[in-house]
Amino acid sequence: MHYQGHPYRTVWHPTEAARTIRIIDQRALPWAFLVEDLREVKDVARAIRDMHVRGAGCIGITAAYGMALAAETSVPLEVAAQLLKSTRPTAVNLAWAVDHMLRVGPTWAEAERLAEEDIAMCRAIGRHGLEIFHQLADAKRTKRGLPPNTLTPDLLRKGGGHQVEQKISPTLNVLTHCNAGWLAFVDIGSATAPIYAAHDAGLPIHVWVDETRPRSQGARLTAWELASHGVPHTVIADNAGGHLMQHGLVDLVITGADRVSRMGDVANKIGTYLKALAARDCGVPFYVALPSSTLDWQCGDGLREIPIEDRGPEELTHAEGPDADGVLHTVRLVPDGSPAANPAFDVTPARLITGLITERGVCPASETGLLGLFPRSK
Amino acid sequence: MHYQGHPYRTVWHPTEAARTIRIIDQRALPWAFLVEDLREVKDVARAIRDMHVRGAGCIGITAAYGMALAAETSVPLEVAAQLLKSTRPTAVNLAWAVDHMLRVGPTWAEAERLAEEDIAMCRAIGRHGLEIFHQLADAKRTKRGLPPNTLTPDLLRKGGGHQVEQKISPTLNVLTHCNAGWLAFVDIGSATAPIYAAHDAGLPIHVWVDETRPRSQGARLTAWELASHGVPHTVIADNAGGHLMQHGLVDLVITGADRVSRMGDVANKIGTYLKALAARDCGVPFYVALPSSTLDWQCGDGLREIPIEDRGPEELTHAEGPDADGVLHTVRLVPDGSPAANPAFDVTPARLITGLITERGVCPASETGLLGLFPRSK
Repeated sequence: MHYQGHPYRTVWHPTEAARTIRIIDQRALPWAFLVEDLREVKDVARAIRDMHVRGAGCIGITAAYGMALAAETSVPLEVAAQLLKSTRPTAVNLAWAVDHMLRVGPTWAEAERLAEEDIAMCRAIGRHGLEIFHQLADAKRTKRGLPPNTLTPDLLRKGGGHQVEQKISPTLNVLTHCNAGWLAFVDIGSATAPIYAAHDAGLPIHVWVDETRPRSQGARLTAWELASHGVPHTVIADNAGGHLMQHGLVDLVITGADRVSRMGDVANKIGTYLKALAARDCGVPFYVALPSSTLDWQCGDGLREIPIEDRGPEELTHAEGPDADGVLHTVRLVPDGSPAANPAFDVTPARLITGLITERGVCPASETGLLGLFPRSK
Repeated sequence: MHYQGHPYRTVWHPTEAARTIRIIDQRALPWAFLVEDLREVKDVARAIRDMHVRGAGCIGITAAYGMALAAETSVPLEVAAQLLKSTRPTAVNLAWAVDHMLRVGPTWAEAERLAEEDIAMCRAIGRHGLEIFHQLADAKRTKRGLPPNTLTPDLLRKGGGHQVEQKISPTLNVLTHCNAGWLAFVDIGSATAPIYAAHDAGLPIHVWVDETRPRSQGARLTAWELASHGVPHTVIADNAGGHLMQHGLVDLVITGADRVSRMGDVANKIGTYLKALAARDCGVPFYVALPSSTLDWQCGDGLREIPIEDRGPEELTHAEGPDADGVLHTVRLVPDGSPAANPAFDVTPARLITGLITERGVCPASETGLLGLFPRSK
């Protein structure tokens, strides 16, 4: 994606700087756009653990680059692999990417290939998701007695078509949780892929952005991404989504995933399960977008088997942001005498999920559904 | 309740200062304990609107005192009533208290009587709720093959009884949302009444405190209350409750209410509905504690009929707290270019509620249930 006119990825191997991985330090967003160079494997591990980079795809590819870096240093590959895999326990891409690099031999070229593959998968997810968005937009138009497949007035005017009323293109309201945007991958994103595709195709779209406490990836990263790309959006408290769904203000929910079991259970940012429950209760479609690198075929029952990372309480008890003068402060939100707990992910059972959007198409959240798209994976 | 050894109410008419209402300015909690004097009706209205005082019971009684104050000033009673009722649209107690004062004639004595009634109702809710807590604790003991009605080892030792193992008294884990504590009433609270009663009776109890974004009444007020009273508790993100329930870490949910329809639908702080959905999905009992002043007999379908207050976006986009040196800052959490929406309440349909705990006892969340306890109210 572009930032101030320049194309960026979240992680790359700069040609001009050998033995270096370059990342966007996402901790500084949205207040500052910082690029960081990582020159040692331990720096890569720290960048993943301390969330300079985060998001299933992004940490997987960063770890792959980390293995390529390890191959050029004195750190034994097995040690590097162990170190990198230990940083974040929930996302499956991380272990997958590290093991893959060990198996095929870690080179910059192979890390590059995985990065390109990650981007291609996100692009394909965008195409498949866009079809769903079009179907839901058409259903919304039909419900209001309007012709299907109508584009926005702006586009029709630009194309020299006939004038139409704004009302023939009701806006599709999408709710998303956390950040499964381009910042969570190498580029484009998973949950955001159909959003960007829809916006670029002229489908009127508006995104409800869950702020996603405690780390506020929605408010800080997804909102920043959408604003940068010009996608209309509104940030809401994580508490608000159910209320909006009750009142018909959400047409679909789409999230990413950190790990998906072969039964279709989805581990994703804490709070995803609550939105899935509300979607079911209100008859709102709930989709999960994921590249197949997020699938864990070894895992059956996600609720029992996927390890959930407990992160430090300070993510909840403190918040950081600029004051009116732009000076950054870290302020306390919870009184000193009160302990806090911070489970970082939850598991949404497959029964609550309308469909999984993968690079190979859309399938039911079930073993049968997944094997239909990935037949030789079992 | 006590603060630093002194008994306090949230609002009172100080004998030494005529024509004055005194309140705890809850905006300063938990960082500072400030008492504020209100001497004009417009100050009372501002204190309610800007949430110096908040919580259904507390704002109702503050408005009642405000009407008594109006009777001693040049502000016409009808004008004062209109002004006070316009401050917060969702809570029914506010309009009820103002109308009541208009009807019976606003005096300090009548406001005092309503305050005492509020406290008596909370105390009764505590008694009825405690029975439920004991039943659930007994069920938990039975499930683990332990004798019912056992008290904590500490209490048994204090009473000279026989020594018992800690394991015979599994802790009852209660989850609550927002603040329906003594700060939300005149004293004691609604949802907290059984919690304080249980803790004081020696029933081992632990409270999961939803931080309750965007205003963080859980993190700031409920945590402060529980810490002051010595009740074990842990603050969590609003996103975490579903995950905890999935893993058997919540034995019951109890919340307050801002308005309850005669069908048993509950308007309460935004996000309550999501917790009720998770409780149903996980088989966790979900109780709502309310004094009958919160009942709106005119309202049938809560989801359609209860007005939901939209508050300013800055509650979501900014947060306030002390830095490491104790200096208060207001920091931005959402980037400048992103709008935010802030619905303050949602409605939990009666079908999701295990029971309503009122001052007259516990009943199903239904018109039949409510009429069983309040037969002449229809």
